[in-house]
Amino acid sequence: MGSFEVERKTRGLAATNPSGILSPYTYTLRSTGPEDVFVKVICCGICHTDIHQVKNHLGMSNYPMVPGHEVVGEVVEVGSGVTKFTAGDIVGVGCIVGCCGNCQPCKSDIEQYCNKKIWSYNDVYTDGNPTQGGFADAMVVNQNFVVKIPEGMAAEQAAPLLCAGVTVYSPLNHFGLKKSGLRGGILGLGGVGHMGVKIAKAMGHHVTVISSSMKKKEEALDHLGADDYLVSSDSTRMQELVDSLDYIIDTIPVFHPLVPYLSLLKVDGKLILMGVINTPLEFLTPLVMLGRKSITGSFVGSIKETEEMLEFCKEKDITSTIEVVKMDYINTAFERLEKNDVRYRFVVDVAGSKLDH
Amino acid sequence: MGSFEVERKTRGLAATNPSGILSPYTYTLRSTGPEDVFVKVICCGICHTDIHQVKNHLGMSNYPMVPGHEVVGEVVEVGSGVTKFTAGDIVGVGCIVGCCGNCQPCKSDIEQYCNKKIWSYNDVYTDGNPTQGGFADAMVVNQNFVVKIPEGMAAEQAAPLLCAGVTVYSPLNHFGLKKSGLRGGILGLGGVGHMGVKIAKAMGHHVTVISSSMKKKEEALDHLGADDYLVSSDSTRMQELVDSLDYIIDTIPVFHPLVPYLSLLKVDGKLILMGVINTPLEFLTPLVMLGRKSITGSFVGSIKETEEMLEFCKEKDITSTIEVVKMDYINTAFERLEKNDVRYRFVVDVAGSKLDH
Repeated sequence: MGSFEVERKTRGLAATNPSGILSPYTYTLRSTGPEDVFVKVICCGICHTDIHQVKNHLGMSNYPMVPGHEVVGEVVEVGSGVTKFTAGDIVGVGCIVGCCGNCQPCKSDIEQYCNKKIWSYNDVYTDGNPTQGGFADAMVVNQNFVVKIPEGMAAEQAAPLLCAGVTVYSPLNHFGLKKSGLRGGILGLGGVGHMGVKIAKAMGHHVTVISSSMKKKEEALDHLGADDYLVSSDSTRMQELVDSLDYIIDTIPVFHPLVPYLSLLKVDGKLILMGVINTPLEFLTPLVMLGRKSITGSFVGSIKETEEMLEFCKEKDITSTIEVVKMDYINTAFERLEKNDVRYRFVVDVAGSKLDH
Repeated sequence: MGSFEVERKTRGLAATNPSGILSPYTYTLRSTGPEDVFVKVICCGICHTDIHQVKNHLGMSNYPMVPGHEVVGEVVEVGSGVTKFTAGDIVGVGCIVGCCGNCQPCKSDIEQYCNKKIWSYNDVYTDGNPTQGGFADAMVVNQNFVVKIPEGMAAEQAAPLLCAGVTVYSPLNHFGLKKSGLRGGILGLGGVGHMGVKIAKAMGHHVTVISSSMKKKEEALDHLGADDYLVSSDSTRMQELVDSLDYIIDTIPVFHPLVPYLSLLKVDGKLILMGVINTPLEFLTPLVMLGRKSITGSFVGSIKETEEMLEFCKEKDITSTIEVVKMDYINTAFERLEKNDVRYRFVVDVAGSKLDH
């Protein structure tokens, strides 16, 4: 297992401006250093954050940008210092590909909160070059940011777990909610929300899906296995369920009122925010204080938690509900995702697509 | 120890309308039931909430209303079923004088979060009569809502602990912050804030007082023993202290921005709200999510925590900084408190005042 001594070209789909359109792009991967793993991409999930990044909604985008941070691939070769992986392993890469290693979060194995973390794409690596994501033939990634996909788990099933899956698993685990008998709410039924239902059910929770319309009722109850379905405009049922939930996972990615949902929480209940929203959200202090409730949030999960979560999903036989598409469909997929028109996650079959330039 | 068999009249100072002015008022105390303690009031602290209640800021005030919920008194006689107290005991009564006893919070010894809790005043007791507070000669209180004042603790010192003291002690205790070596912020230096500095210091924390002006710097550092003083408009120092605090106790009772203070918190840091504010407060989700921070709050403390806190204060020799006044000064004291013109808590010497009608 020697390290690669030359840089190599790879082909991907990149945004070159905030239009939201990706187009073919060839770029150079760094030499595979002693700690690096060279991964041939098999597939990659599309996350809502990819749209924010591609369209520069956060005002921090650099182009050309190859998005994609739910990457499953095959190890092709490894650096001389790599012991955890060998060629042929099926592995995953998520949101983060680097961190400082010295700060409190890094030392506590919650490197996702390191202030110097390096994002899988739209960031700058330690060598000064831009990082590029998973909608490409290959990636070179430090071994500490690569996880093994459990044997028997299909690549396209694993992909959404690497961001959407760990994003809900991590706070449930961290906030002491990974225990049976709890009552949880899942607010919003998109990519993250649908994983929320499945993971919470697998933890033994009574799960209520909360939505703005009746549209997804059958889906939530019959297909995803939720126990209850609550329409937020149904004031009678909202009133009935006051003080009834131990937590709500709030996946809504746009401005929304919090007060009605805070009311649904029991004493010590937690409203866990998952949506990056740049408009301020509002709440009233008595609603929080008089039930010692918390408004909190969490950001993906650590590598350690990702490994744990993958094992949990394998053990509990959790599958993602996905629509597999080819690379030439990616722009349409982005458009449809923006309209929430997907059940529930697009996964791009990268290895099975022709990437002609 | 027989129970009182007749109702008795008592004299207090009551609000009869939202003007904020209290005037003499004579009313009937209930017969001392088997579980009741008849308490002759020695002194009673003035809390900011008293102003909200008297002036009907919360829209829930009923008149005539005798405020006062930081009550220290002497047990005069007890009901037949009372075992915890005997005549002559010096005891305290706080915000709450009843609860349902059957709900989850009641069963978990956090009866302050019972939805059927009965407030010390401006509420209705189980007998259908209004509850009245501590600015009066006497109170009749169920033994479960009475605490013993530790021997050697002066009555006027103990009074502010029964609300302001336990209000800061309870969340520090509950959220796992009662351990040395932490770095805390106290936002706002009023009655609750000054107790916050003293209690946090006694827990072994590095304490930063955060204020809008330099006015209280000397006071905070030299008299209260804070370690640092931060003016919120000093952007250089605010920037220096980003990611530095384990918690902030936010005692500000009016609208204020949260974003600058959330930034001061470390990963997993907690912003603990203590102020009942009816204007919505605002925050940005990335600030919470990207550090797994919590916006939370807490409401007074349980009877069990109040007992614990009194022992803690005795052991650590914590004293309240107070201004003792007589009953005929109470309207002036309310006016001054509303302007924050007190260092730091008014305690009314009820027993030492003439209450002529």
